Amino acid sequence: MSKVYAQASVSLDGFIAGPNGTGFDRLFAWCTAGTVETPTSQPDRLTYRTNAATAAYLRDLLEGTGALVIGRRLFDATNGWNGSHPLGKPVFVVTHEPPTDWVDTDTPYTFVTDGIASAIAQAQSAAGTLDVGVGPGTTVVQALDAGLLTELRLDLVPVTLGSGTPMLEGLTTQHTFADPRTIVGIGVTHLIYDI
Amino acid sequence: MSKVYAQASVSLDGFIAGPNGTGFDRLFAWCTAGTVETPTSQPDRLTYRTNAATAAYLRDLLEGTGALVIGRRLFDATNGWNGSHPLGKPVFVVTHEPPTDWVDTDTPYTFVTDGIASAIAQAQSAAGTLDVGVGPGTTVVQALDAGLLTELRLDLVPVTLGSGTPMLEGLTTQHTFADPRTIVGIGVTHLIYDI
Repeated sequence: MSKVYAQASVSLDGFIAGPNGTGFDRLFAWCTAGTVETPTSQPDRLTYRTNAATAAYLRDLLEGTGALVIGRRLFDATNGWNGSHPLGKPVFVVTHEPPTDWVDTDTPYTFVTDGIASAIAQAQSAAGTLDVGVGPGTTVVQALDAGLLTELRLDLVPVTLGSGTPMLEGLTTQHTFADPRTIVGIGVTHLIYDI
Repeated sequence: MSKVYAQASVSLDGFIAGPNGTGFDRLFAWCTAGTVETPTSQPDRLTYRTNAATAAYLRDLLEGTGALVIGRRLFDATNGWNGSHPLGKPVFVVTHEPPTDWVDTDTPYTFVTDGIASAIAQAQSAAGTLDVGVGPGTTVVQALDAGLLTELRLDLVPVTLGSGTPMLEGLTTQHTFADPRTIVGIGVTHLIYDI
């Protein structure tokens, strides 16, 4: 059974972004803190450099993921990765109102207006036997509350940001998971929770 | 060199207490989730039951701690543990205004009105070669920002609480630590950060 996972780099004080959209350099420093290379589908743009344990964790994600579900805020903030997502997979964007002027280039984008469950179902269909990645942000909270996530991957970064965007803000249900698998990287501890 | 440590049980969404002071049953379920017993100085009141790894982690804390620094809120909420703290060690309470009607019974309490640094210094003096525990809550934030903590121990509990009291709220400095030691318990993952 393919997974529906969420992954987030989160600070020790629980933020996935610092004040006024700062802090990403510190939250994602672990992506290039080592020597073992893990290329994405666009190696010039993004090749991870980590320790061997993190590299195995990332390869599993990169090779296992068949489609992504993201929120409109991330789509807008990255301008749809300028048409070319580093994973090179179909992306499903949850939004109330699709953009009228978007033209697909490398990455196929689908704008989903009928909610997170529909977006995940469409992404699963596109992914086939592969996994679906959700998030970060509001889409993760919605998927978790709707019981649609099967795995939560926290990349816990040993920094504090003081304020910013909380990782899981606005959950309406209290959840309990099993203990995680832990992987110790460089500048990051990966915690993998099966749901 | 003795340590000045903070320890907190924290939910995956970053809270040390749930909404309206609820959630403690779920945040502290790990304390009695196993079979290996670790008695405190008042075994009838609190004996931890965990796996062996957590027991070793707790013994290190219980035997190594010589004094505690807490905030006034915790003192009031527990009524000074009714005069008898489970660790059986001197407690230093940071407060603007000491209570006028408190009489020590088992646990010696000292009310410190000149701030966190003074409280930690007095606690270190009382602890001798042993460690000082700080917190939880505001005292941890103050000690961390003042550069007075040498270790942060997170007991990360695989539950979400949705809202409540954030673990590290109001930090004024952005901190970066080394990667933690990790200990996998039952219903908890211990992350020990040297600062």
